[in-house]
Amino acid sequence: MTTQQNDFSKWYIDTIQKADLMDYTPVRGCIAFKPDGYEIWEHIQEEMDRRFKETGHRNAYFPMLIPESFFQKEKDHIEGFSPELPWVTEAAGEKLEERLALRPTSETMIGHLYSNWIKSYRDLPILINQWANVFRWEKKTLPFIRTSEFLWQEGHTAHVDEEDARKETMQMLTIYKEVVEELLAIPVYDGQKTPSERFAGAIDTYSIEAMMKNGKAVQAGTSHYLGTKFAEAFDIKYLNKANQHEYVHTTSWGTSTRLIGSVIMVHGDEQGLILPPRIAPTQVVLIPVGPWKKNPEIMEKLDDIYAVLKKKGIRVRLDDSDQSPGFKFNEWELKGVPVRIELGPRDLENNQAMLKARDEDEKHAIDLNNIVSAIEEELTTMQTRLFDKARQFRDANAHTHIDTLTELLQHINTSKENGSIPGWVLAGWCGNDACEEKVKEETKYTSRNIPFHPPTTKTTCICCGNEAKHTVWFAQAY
Amino acid sequence: MTTQQNDFSKWYIDTIQKADLMDYTPVRGCIAFKPDGYEIWEHIQEEMDRRFKETGHRNAYFPMLIPESFFQKEKDHIEGFSPELPWVTEAAGEKLEERLALRPTSETMIGHLYSNWIKSYRDLPILINQWANVFRWEKKTLPFIRTSEFLWQEGHTAHVDEEDARKETMQMLTIYKEVVEELLAIPVYDGQKTPSERFAGAIDTYSIEAMMKNGKAVQAGTSHYLGTKFAEAFDIKYLNKANQHEYVHTTSWGTSTRLIGSVIMVHGDEQGLILPPRIAPTQVVLIPVGPWKKNPEIMEKLDDIYAVLKKKGIRVRLDDSDQSPGFKFNEWELKGVPVRIELGPRDLENNQAMLKARDEDEKHAIDLNNIVSAIEEELTTMQTRLFDKARQFRDANAHTHIDTLTELLQHINTSKENGSIPGWVLAGWCGNDACEEKVKEETKYTSRNIPFHPPTTKTTCICCGNEAKHTVWFAQAY
Repeated sequence: MTTQQNDFSKWYIDTIQKADLMDYTPVRGCIAFKPDGYEIWEHIQEEMDRRFKETGHRNAYFPMLIPESFFQKEKDHIEGFSPELPWVTEAAGEKLEERLALRPTSETMIGHLYSNWIKSYRDLPILINQWANVFRWEKKTLPFIRTSEFLWQEGHTAHVDEEDARKETMQMLTIYKEVVEELLAIPVYDGQKTPSERFAGAIDTYSIEAMMKNGKAVQAGTSHYLGTKFAEAFDIKYLNKANQHEYVHTTSWGTSTRLIGSVIMVHGDEQGLILPPRIAPTQVVLIPVGPWKKNPEIMEKLDDIYAVLKKKGIRVRLDDSDQSPGFKFNEWELKGVPVRIELGPRDLENNQAMLKARDEDEKHAIDLNNIVSAIEEELTTMQTRLFDKARQFRDANAHTHIDTLTELLQHINTSKENGSIPGWVLAGWCGNDACEEKVKEETKYTSRNIPFHPPTTKTTCICCGNEAKHTVWFAQAY
Repeated sequence: MTTQQNDFSKWYIDTIQKADLMDYTPVRGCIAFKPDGYEIWEHIQEEMDRRFKETGHRNAYFPMLIPESFFQKEKDHIEGFSPELPWVTEAAGEKLEERLALRPTSETMIGHLYSNWIKSYRDLPILINQWANVFRWEKKTLPFIRTSEFLWQEGHTAHVDEEDARKETMQMLTIYKEVVEELLAIPVYDGQKTPSERFAGAIDTYSIEAMMKNGKAVQAGTSHYLGTKFAEAFDIKYLNKANQHEYVHTTSWGTSTRLIGSVIMVHGDEQGLILPPRIAPTQVVLIPVGPWKKNPEIMEKLDDIYAVLKKKGIRVRLDDSDQSPGFKFNEWELKGVPVRIELGPRDLENNQAMLKARDEDEKHAIDLNNIVSAIEEELTTMQTRLFDKARQFRDANAHTHIDTLTELLQHINTSKENGSIPGWVLAGWCGNDACEEKVKEETKYTSRNIPFHPPTTKTTCICCGNEAKHTVWFAQAY
């Protein structure tokens, strides 16, 4: 197997295939999500959906096909998305009068419908979310991270005024941050996107940004304040309390199956996946060891443990196949199962079992009398431990000491020579697109976001040296 | 509002729009599922998904776009589906080399992938389900019941032999029957489809069939034994224990958002929807009545009840808007809320509230001291009561006394004259396609299924009078 160090991309692709998370398909850039990959998404969905509903949102479903004329109505939106659209031009043996796009996102279709659904301030806010497939026909694809078809949720809300809409935008970003940190054990920086990195058609875009183990950034979720731009394009007005027509203020926000890719790239190691317990399809694997077939008590005990764990809602597997223990250890480590329990005749004599946490080097003995609570405790502490490890890694590779483009170039070169990770760079920025563009051209680093809570504040622009208006995370990004 | 009696279709369309379940969109045959409509689907999904997982199935996700060449591989399949396919022919500004169909169902894509995933008998059975959107570009559409895009689940399994695959086919049909009867309170006949009504590419198709309030049938779920037809078309082979290559036997099975339409058409009445408690987005609505604003105790009491019901996981709404009670009653009846609780000053004096079940004419007083258990009990009994009412209606309109085509035509004419519902007809069938076809031509009745448990057995073919091989439900169908 390729090592993470040598070739991170190849390690990633090898690992997700060997661990049975996905498969390629004959359709360019479209993957099949195999059960172990899809189940990670199901756990993400469950938690996100719970949080959305808790905050008053409801799910709906909108048509996937969007008439071409809808895109024309918001000019930034069509400019941003038209290069990536697949088109339906024929159906049931006939050429269509108007081309229909496979949705890349649903602001236009939903804007059209909201203009009928919203009449009065009493109808507001509208708080709707959709779980759906979307399409962006991109040149360079990478399983989970960037695919032609992917799965996501897109929230679309409409509000009486800017204040209410901005509150929503921030609320959803906070939910994203909490779910990604607590469920996926991925630390993120929340912040505002620079104008050049905004969603096509947004007034302001906010994001959470995560660092992968190769130092690259993944935008793990975005939340947009759209102002009245889509309301104007689609004529979404309401009658206010003073009986006057006003445009609604809208938001949209999304997270996608790229979170599956992120969790692999943040936690995985040379042995394969390391899955945070809360999203692992299998949380605990029980493996009989030694001459266990000669001693039926071993399997009886494991069956007992299995039944108790199962009853507690813990996702447990018992591997009593004929493979050798070593083979099984490798297999389940590759799949990233958080906790492995080994039980052999000698263990049973000592009334103990061996517990191995996927992310730790050593296994240790646990008392059979309280094995279930020991496993539960391990799952909880491992969840926190993975987050802490990821944060330590992120902080160690998110550099705050680089102040000029020359220093950045030097840093990148040194990293290359050392075989170390260049990581992220916190930099001052004057606010000019040109400076951002120059950084990108010379280093491939793009602005990730203007973090709400930067580790420190920068005073001069990394590019032009003038006064910095913002402190920005720059990084190579997926 | 149009009455059910006068114009059932118009009643249906009016009701689902007024009750806020859906909206039309500018894309032909594609509807928007509004939150109250979509939530019914969410409750169906939750229960189905639980049952699928309980029986060892796992979810996955496959590409929506299917290369044209895939369809060519199974000739019955392409013949059945090609007239209804929408095609992507361009993407990202370029014409595609091969057209890509929007999936009408996924046997071909999944067949292609299974041929890679399955190597040995150890890999079998493969038990996978997918929740997805699918497309069938049909001429005549009806919201929920028949739309160009709809949502469904499609199970696709592969087995070592016919016996195991047939067991699976039947198991899933049974799950469909149970969920539709228990959750949606819709009685169904399970049985086998005649050859002419089989799924395109199946050896055998089984269905559950439900009767709408206008006597028409809806095919509410299907389960197919596909034999080795797709295995041969896509070369899905495994190495058996004797080290020989064998084709797998596959099944597929599906239910869709047409179940939402069915539940409306089975239970609704002139006042609007009647939703079975288990799938109602709002199960209980609390409404203050009389001069309640002068007596703060009313709202305090309702707030208490609300909090207790909420905590018990009951989906409750408190309507304290300024509308009149009469307006509110109509509104919530239209939306099909199972239980309405009214509380006014006089009720409070008598330590009681009024409970009105949506499907019953009279309201009755309930003691405030055990109002919560009274509500819970009503929700349970109403669920059963709705099923019983629907079964009585179905049985009264599923005729078993018609033995010839002449009698059937006469029955249809008499019904038309009486303004009564022609309903279903249990008929003998000799097994010839020609007889089935003739019944259809002369009466618009098609064979629904050959029920496993017919109310009685027929001995002569309804069309030719020869010996009947099967006893079949015939009906006009959606």
